[in-house]
Amino acid sequence: MKRGRVEMVTFASEVLRGNAAGDPHARRVPIYLPPSYDANGAQRFPVVYVLTGFTGRGRMLLNDNPWSPSLDDRMDALIAAGCPELVLVMPDCFTRFGGSQYVDSTATGRYETHLVEELVPWVDARYRTLAAREHRGIAGKSSGGFGALRLGMLHADAFGAVACHSGDMLFEYCYQVDFPKACSVLQAAGGPRRFLEAFEAKPQKAKDDLHALNILAMAACYSPEPAAELGVGLPFDLATGLPRADVWQRWLAFDPLRLLPTHAAALRTLRLLYLDCGTKDEFHLHHAARPFTAELEKLGIAHRYEEFDDGHMNVPYRYDVSLPELARALSA
Amino acid sequence: MKRGRVEMVTFASEVLRGNAAGDPHARRVPIYLPPSYDANGAQRFPVVYVLTGFTGRGRMLLNDNPWSPSLDDRMDALIAAGCPELVLVMPDCFTRFGGSQYVDSTATGRYETHLVEELVPWVDARYRTLAAREHRGIAGKSSGGFGALRLGMLHADAFGAVACHSGDMLFEYCYQVDFPKACSVLQAAGGPRRFLEAFEAKPQKAKDDLHALNILAMAACYSPEPAAELGVGLPFDLATGLPRADVWQRWLAFDPLRLLPTHAAALRTLRLLYLDCGTKDEFHLHHAARPFTAELEKLGIAHRYEEFDDGHMNVPYRYDVSLPELARALSA
Amino acid sequence: MKRGRVEMVTFASEVLRGNAAGDPHARRVPIYLPPSYDANGAQRFPVVYVLTGFTGRGRMLLNDNPWSPSLDDRMDALIAAGCPELVLVMPDCFTRFGGSQYVDSTATGRYETHLVEELVPWVDARYRTLAAREHRGIAGKSSGGFGALRLGMLHADAFGAVACHSGDMLFEYCYQVDFPKACSVLQAAGGPRRFLEAFEAKPQKAKDDLHALNILAMAACYSPEPAAELGVGLPFDLATGLPRADVWQRWLAFDPLRLLPTHAAALRTLRLLYLDCGTKDEFHLHHAARPFTAELEKLGIAHRYEEFDDGHMNVPYRYDVSLPELARALSA
Amino acid sequence: MKRGRVEMVTFASEVLRGNAAGDPHARRVPIYLPPSYDANGAQRFPVVYVLTGFTGRGRMLLNDNPWSPSLDDRMDALIAAGCPELVLVMPDCFTRFGGSQYVDSTATGRYETHLVEELVPWVDARYRTLAAREHRGIAGKSSGGFGALRLGMLHADAFGAVACHSGDMLFEYCYQVDFPKACSVLQAAGGPRRFLEAFEAKPQKAKDDLHALNILAMAACYSPEPAAELGVGLPFDLATGLPRADVWQRWLAFDPLRLLPTHAAALRTLRLLYLDCGTKDEFHLHHAARPFTAELEKLGIAHRYEEFDDGHMNVPYRYDVSLPELARALSA
Repeated sequence: MKRGRVEMVTFASEVLRGNAAGDPHARRVPIYLPPSYDANGAQRFPVVYVLTGFTGRGRMLLNDNPWSPSLDDRMDALIAAGCPELVLVMPDCFTRFGGSQYVDSTATGRYETHLVEELVPWVDARYRTLAAREHRGIAGKSSGGFGALRLGMLHADAFGAVACHSGDMLFEYCYQVDFPKACSVLQAAGGPRRFLEAFEAKPQKAKDDLHALNILAMAACYSPEPAAELGVGLPFDLATGLPRADVWQRWLAFDPLRLLPTHAAALRTLRLLYLDCGTKDEFHLHHAARPFTAELEKLGIAHRYEEFDDGHMNVPYRYDVSLPELARALSA
Repeated sequence: MKRGRVEMVTFASEVLRGNAAGDPHARRVPIYLPPSYDANGAQRFPVVYVLTGFTGRGRMLLNDNPWSPSLDDRMDALIAAGCPELVLVMPDCFTRFGGSQYVDSTATGRYETHLVEELVPWVDARYRTLAAREHRGIAGKSSGGFGALRLGMLHADAFGAVACHSGDMLFEYCYQVDFPKACSVLQAAGGPRRFLEAFEAKPQKAKDDLHALNILAMAACYSPEPAAELGVGLPFDLATGLPRADVWQRWLAFDPLRLLPTHAAALRTLRLLYLDCGTKDEFHLHHAARPFTAELEKLGIAHRYEEFDDGHMNVPYRYDVSLPELARALSA
Repeated sequence: MKRGRVEMVTFASEVLRGNAAGDPHARRVPIYLPPSYDANGAQRFPVVYVLTGFTGRGRMLLNDNPWSPSLDDRMDALIAAGCPELVLVMPDCFTRFGGSQYVDSTATGRYETHLVEELVPWVDARYRTLAAREHRGIAGKSSGGFGALRLGMLHADAFGAVACHSGDMLFEYCYQVDFPKACSVLQAAGGPRRFLEAFEAKPQKAKDDLHALNILAMAACYSPEPAAELGVGLPFDLATGLPRADVWQRWLAFDPLRLLPTHAAALRTLRLLYLDCGTKDEFHLHHAARPFTAELEKLGIAHRYEEFDDGHMNVPYRYDVSLPELARALSA
Repeated sequence: MKRGRVEMVTFASEVLRGNAAGDPHARRVPIYLPPSYDANGAQRFPVVYVLTGFTGRGRMLLNDNPWSPSLDDRMDALIAAGCPELVLVMPDCFTRFGGSQYVDSTATGRYETHLVEELVPWVDARYRTLAAREHRGIAGKSSGGFGALRLGMLHADAFGAVACHSGDMLFEYCYQVDFPKACSVLQAAGGPRRFLEAFEAKPQKAKDDLHALNILAMAACYSPEPAAELGVGLPFDLATGLPRADVWQRWLAFDPLRLLPTHAAALRTLRLLYLDCGTKDEFHLHHAARPFTAELEKLGIAHRYEEFDDGHMNVPYRYDVSLPELARALSA
């Protein structure tokens, strides 16, 4: 089997320099170059940006697991089986909150801008890509699926194809259900700052802590409040525990299900809009993907939707379905 | 130790006859009579109605458990330790949905009316009670705590003291978080009717089924829809899975936290308003009890509130705190 | 439907008086009398002794549960459907360790003697039973199934039919697997005495505590050591945590699987030997029941064995199968 | 901070060629070279072989995790903080059973021989190591801790220092407790071969499957039976479910706790014998490490033992304690 290779580049972002969360502005970004990249020095390739889920960053897509190939091995195998060749870019948009949702936020940093305005042109300048939106795709899972879908809606000039695996949407079901627990954890910790510091200091991260971190991170991304602790507007009043309706409305403005009606035109221009979700998704995202795709249907927006018999975690094997689809759409 | 005794009466309710859910209208209601009831044939006693939680009915308060006394044994011990004597009435407002929330509903039956207008006068006629609201209390846990608190608000002419243990309120946190799971279960079962029939047929009730039943029951109580399947308006669209805002508003009209501002006057007339909740309540009811009691404070409504270091289940030992308080308040 | 009735008798045991564990010698024993018992004052009835599992006692068989009939209601329904009438005796062999395994032990008391030599004759003297082993059966679930089966082996002169539901056997699988956890819990508590006192004082019993209590109780029953703390020989060294092979051998002497070869003759005399087990038994008792019944087969001992698709807990519905079998065998 | 680098070598093993399990004989082995390795071309370094736990292989020590440094990053940081420099070798002894326990077995392959006789000389030949047992250590966690400790006992001529984190021992507690569950899973699958094939085909590995795989793997390593299915002698009879005492004795011959008395002399020659374990180890390995180290004490064998407040999983941070100890011992 012919193998591609991975270049691990360190990208010094100007956009992220001095970000509010104090995260590094230089990021290590793995870039997968397919077998023919070195073999044929004249050929140009379509590119797919692959976005990781919450607590992830690009490098983790290369992690070794004896029963689940890393993304580069997976891509090698797909290409060997006839999939058109692709360059894969694996951005690092991690923050100390556990993620950025690939949006611009005063509490975390300008990750949307970093990705679209900074990383994309840099990759096109440095690598032999087909540097046009028709040949540039974006994909991801969970928060990465959210990111791919939302950026596909808002930056259809940059991306010509989208694959969204188990992407965050219908925020009532995927986030709101965790508010009371997150509130308990943050209250017990003495507020978000102390929670975060204690979390970082713990060698072992507890499940409840990760759930609370998730809600805190979403708040940092969707409802930053510069005057608040850590610059984050929580979706509940930390003193009383009661939900905050105003904050909740700010969150909903990011919900792909709510964004869809006003972004139908952008989605219509895509060469491929792929979505899938497990029928046992623990974040209930199948309950979101179904009305989302029903609405696509109603709006006459071409798409492909699959459900699979699994939950939310450990489903990178779904890239075996989406990457060939993306490759074909972006190679045409 | 002197012991009281329990009479198990069968009460044939006119109000419940022909109820929509097809539940029996004759109910077995245990009535605890304290030691002096037989000893002193002239003495009259205050009464407390004790309401069970979801899936419960009065008789279950007498269930044997080697490490947790039944309610009659508990009351005997409290009286032996100096608590004023009480008659305890343990109504059966169970339905095939698992409960009635002690409200009137076209989907279940008129349990609120049954309790207040039928059972109370019948008890007063048949037993040597102090037949006045000053001497009549109502208590309960979980759905029973909700029932006690709500009936105390709406029928302050009937009840002069209320004890609410871990009572349902702040419906966003105690109910809404279970909507997506309940929706999945009901969808998989083929709708509420098939779900309920399959549930009844299963010798072993699964945890997920009980969660779904809980949501179905709350819908039967809070948002009955005569035209809908089983007469129940679900808080989500069963086809799409999406939340239904109109149904949700009907639910909120039953939330004690929402009822409080308009029922402050009634609560002010109570001789005792007791609330407690575990700090680890799995239904997050501590996040409800805190703003509820904060609001009581603000409104200048006398009450007593305790938090205890435990969860939601298996906390009948809290009656050791509330029953003496009720007994003293109702004996005064 | 004709209904039987339950007499709750208090039995003052001489055998249990002054027992080592300090448990009461007077026990409340429910006795179910079938519909014809009162209707026909001359008729005599077969009897079945029904033994509860660990943490149980006879009265709990009458506990109310909206979806699972109490034993008396269950028996009424079976009789209405044609089952021969039976008297049911529900002994209380509970101890502060959570149970007695229905054996004689210096650490708990002489429960085997109490049951066979004291309770049986007393019942026969007081009630219109068919007072012969051909008409006397013994049944139980879990530790009660163990008790029924073992007493059927050792006291075939007293019992002519046995029903064993999910009974303890193959002690490697049902007990030994919990030794390390139990050891951790007992070590953390500061030894068995402190553990037991702390356990009794806790209003809420934790799952780990119940597992540890189970192992402690089995040790109290199977390997009492008068000189040891609480008179109990633990199956592991509490200081080092290491298994104790000598104690383990004492346990194995109680294992029905080991008792079988030397008690085949007794089992052959039974009118009915019924066993069943769930295929998902959490204590792995299906792995015990299979070789046990295979051995019965090999020894040519008549029996009936059923597996059902369920686990270990909440399976009283299996009495719907065993009680009619017992009734027919004991009525013949 | 000065950084070392990792060479990913592919090692074509002669010893593993044609192994029974059909696993590849060429393995990718990461080798960490410390900062001075390139800077000073004359210097030689001590080496530590780091063995992964069950389901692991060397490369996984390099996996990215935002809150837990990979082994190379961890080593860089330790060296920057003053730890003597080390070469780290991360062998791949994975098999289709999930691991090899670093022993020779006819069912898996000769992994012990591969490691000691093949990999060690090859590393010494190819890298500037201090090629003497005084400067060669072996470390690992869980099954890797078992491997390090056992190889330190049996090959003290090869390794002069050992670090065992949460290593498998006292097999009654860490393995035997899982026999009944593993038996159920293997029976349901239709035997080990079908189980393994189905397991490999599943994109999502269930927890119960992994437990069963663990027991199957240990059987493949400790009790191979060339005539049996897959060449594996199971510790229970698959038909009856009963434990097999003869197989169990073969397992015990590998238990470090049993090996200790006969290998005391070897352990006495070590420059460092380090052990640690979490006090909440889910495999109960603290109950093993305590008597093991107590026996070391009794035998007068120098060692260092630490307990830490955590469980069995996700504890690579313990290398922050052991690696500097090893480095100092092997550098002296």
